[in-house]
Amino acid sequence: MQFTSESIEHVVELLSTLPTIGKKTARRLAFHLLRQPQEFVDQFASAMVQMRTGVRECSVCCTFTDREVCAICSHEKRDRSVICVVEQPSDVMAIEKTNDYRGLYHVLHGALSPLDGIGPDDIRLHELLSRLNMQVHELILALNPNVEGEVTTQYIAKMVSPLAIPVTRIARGVPMGSDLEFADDATLARALEGRTPV
Amino acid sequence: MQFTSESIEHVVELLSTLPTIGKKTARRLAFHLLRQPQEFVDQFASAMVQMRTGVRECSVCCTFTDREVCAICSHEKRDRSVICVVEQPSDVMAIEKTNDYRGLYHVLHGALSPLDGIGPDDIRLHELLSRLNMQVHELILALNPNVEGEVTTQYIAKMVSPLAIPVTRIARGVPMGSDLEFADDATLARALEGRTPV
Repeated sequence: MQFTSESIEHVVELLSTLPTIGKKTARRLAFHLLRQPQEFVDQFASAMVQMRTGVRECSVCCTFTDREVCAICSHEKRDRSVICVVEQPSDVMAIEKTNDYRGLYHVLHGALSPLDGIGPDDIRLHELLSRLNMQVHELILALNPNVEGEVTTQYIAKMVSPLAIPVTRIARGVPMGSDLEFADDATLARALEGRTPV
Repeated sequence: MQFTSESIEHVVELLSTLPTIGKKTARRLAFHLLRQPQEFVDQFASAMVQMRTGVRECSVCCTFTDREVCAICSHEKRDRSVICVVEQPSDVMAIEKTNDYRGLYHVLHGALSPLDGIGPDDIRLHELLSRLNMQVHELILALNPNVEGEVTTQYIAKMVSPLAIPVTRIARGVPMGSDLEFADDATLARALEGRTPV
């Protein structure tokens, strides 16, 4: 027996398709929305639609932006000779938060994954290749430290090698503030391999 | 520096006002929505608005419903002589899931809380009183086992006493499947107090 309204159930169903949101949380969110003023829900709905309609990929680095060219690519103080390749727009934010990087980015929107049918044409590799001119002095690969990231890193390194542009990758090792005792084998092996002089 | 789009930030801000959703999850959800087809986001937005516009309180029991009278109140097989009082529509669902209760409900939409300025006029007490006629043979109070629930339980018991309708409350005791060793003092005390013959 249906003991709640169909329109609530519909919203609950849609909410529970979102990542990290299960059926119980979805129901809680729906009831929360029902307790908000109508204007809030209207504003919420139109903000979602407006975001989906208005946001596109930057024509240079492919990150999400409202404009033709994103704020980073159009910023005159950024170092145009370095490009950092990441998988997702959220990775750009993570690196920007360090306040340590002044170069440009390139967002692939994914990583190569033959098992999932994601090949070179499904991520923004052509767009990356077309940016690599004489002006670029270093390509930093900051992909996720997993199988897909590794495959993509190797693929890009091979793809770029004829251009004679130095390609680097971010260090893999023990995270700051962690305990050696609890580091996994693969991480410790990489940390030893990548040791640097003090 | 703003390293993402304004419209994304707006949605992130709105999402993080929802319960259980922090800034990081909100951003993850926003990016997820950006990866969905436009139609999905449109459907999502209109389902939210439609829910908020269409859902109202049942004119009998005050739970959320699409109709004038909810499915439970209008169901001919429900026992109209018993009313179970709960705080929220989600409590109705919780009790319905047990498949153990065949009476009607009354949803207060809150509990008395003088500290938060929630008095008798702020929850559906008048509506409850107006339902209590000769036909009702038992009023079951199933409010949350906390201070507000306790205050409300006592208030309703007093309010109903002139009508000579039996008022009961759900048992407080050790939850099924738990371990006595880990039950808190208050729960154990209630469980002892409420002991029943075997």
